[in-house]
Amino acid sequence: MNQSALFNNIVKKKSYLCIGLDSEMEKIPAFLLKEKDPVFEFNKRIIDATHTFAVAYKPNAAFYECNGPDGWRSFDATVRYIKENYPDIFVIADAKRGDIGNTSRMYAKAFLGNMPCDAITVAPYMGEDSVTPFLSYNDKWIILLVLTSNKGADDFQYHSDDGLRLFERVLNVSRKWGNINNMMYVVGATRAEMIKDIRRIVPDHFLLVPGIGAQGGSLEEISKFGMNKKCGLLVNSSRGIIFADNTKNFDKIAAEKAAGVQVEMQGHLLKKGLI
Amino acid sequence: MNQSALFNNIVKKKSYLCIGLDSEMEKIPAFLLKEKDPVFEFNKRIIDATHTFAVAYKPNAAFYECNGPDGWRSFDATVRYIKENYPDIFVIADAKRGDIGNTSRMYAKAFLGNMPCDAITVAPYMGEDSVTPFLSYNDKWIILLVLTSNKGADDFQYHSDDGLRLFERVLNVSRKWGNINNMMYVVGATRAEMIKDIRRIVPDHFLLVPGIGAQGGSLEEISKFGMNKKCGLLVNSSRGIIFADNTKNFDKIAAEKAAGVQVEMQGHLLKKGLI
Repeated sequence: MNQSALFNNIVKKKSYLCIGLDSEMEKIPAFLLKEKDPVFEFNKRIIDATHTFAVAYKPNAAFYECNGPDGWRSFDATVRYIKENYPDIFVIADAKRGDIGNTSRMYAKAFLGNMPCDAITVAPYMGEDSVTPFLSYNDKWIILLVLTSNKGADDFQYHSDDGLRLFERVLNVSRKWGNINNMMYVVGATRAEMIKDIRRIVPDHFLLVPGIGAQGGSLEEISKFGMNKKCGLLVNSSRGIIFADNTKNFDKIAAEKAAGVQVEMQGHLLKKGLI
Repeated sequence: MNQSALFNNIVKKKSYLCIGLDSEMEKIPAFLLKEKDPVFEFNKRIIDATHTFAVAYKPNAAFYECNGPDGWRSFDATVRYIKENYPDIFVIADAKRGDIGNTSRMYAKAFLGNMPCDAITVAPYMGEDSVTPFLSYNDKWIILLVLTSNKGADDFQYHSDDGLRLFERVLNVSRKWGNINNMMYVVGATRAEMIKDIRRIVPDHFLLVPGIGAQGGSLEEISKFGMNKKCGLLVNSSRGIIFADNTKNFDKIAAEKAAGVQVEMQGHLLKKGLI
């Protein structure tokens, strides 16, 4: 999927919502635990109920790996279910991988080659040859960590060389590795005040923005400072949608929460004249 | 395993060799492909043949993930095989994980809780709360990326704030998160000239040093600049040992290669008066 196709889906659905499938076994409704693959069953029902309000899903690998080989099966089944039933949905493997070249190639194969994920999140610390192997799959994307939503982002990401902070250096250097059709950047919603600085360096790239909802970021600020002519934003919510309820109605309640975010997003898209 | 126990094993074996189990399906001897779990079978034979020359093994998660759920089974079986048969061996999950706190906790559970790994490699970019969840398991270690062996290390790791380079800042800040009994650092052998600077900041920590062999780093230089009173080094070789041969004798040839490195290491330990 290229940038135009992604933008078309955003316009069609009047939404730039990404739903994070951080589907922790301990938090899914208890009645699902009798299913053969409770995590997949949970995801399937969440996806069926919410897909009209979202343009992307983002299963986070950690919540699957902690269930061992079965967890990998749930991850794989979830990705395939989405692409088989809702092929226009953009699927992000939130895996935050990155290693020396021949090793990153194996991670790329795991997520982009063997599975039909559209994108994978990648950590930048090891530099170019740890990142570019993920760019060798046609129509697939990497989403590079730039400025994360957590408190620890302050430890290194603002480290400043001649006035250039590390997150700005990551943007400056990495944008030459790919283009606006195969690279996005992770910018935490809790860092909305920085989005202006980021847009100066990468005006046309899409940004994946986690941190609204449970983490406290503001959709309004993110949209005000971050939206560009092709929207340029995928805003993620995980726990605030998928764990809003844990009764038999969890999927309906998740859909209500997702619909609420979609309506707010529609307003921001209208204000910008994009729909 | 604490630092003293690790040092005792080094003295006993006269070796600080870590063998990297980057056991790529396409590179293991063809006659093993008829086995039910070829990767595990390969690892088992490598381990049985080389364990007297090594104090640590380091399976790299990427080479297992690219085989899907079966790959996770091979990884798990390998770790358990080592700890059941050679409990003194230090097992490192080379996974380079790191995410926001509640997510890192899941990665920690996957590798340190569910599996008997002694340590996991962690990426520092997201800061303290992405790293410390890995410290919540007794007698387990994190090994934080500092200065990696690949070319891309130059892109960000030398980014300098008031004379303090990023890799030095990572050392300076992170050493307060844990102690010499639960934290190590990754320093590429191809960066031997930097080890003096690193030892000024962390004189007593163990360093995990990949990059000798196929990547071209020098064991002599690493040992000269990096060794401390408790050795303080685990030097890794992967492809140079495990893929030295691909006939029926691959395990014997791997053992010869490992023995060669061990003899060299014995010389460096003697020179330092540690054995």
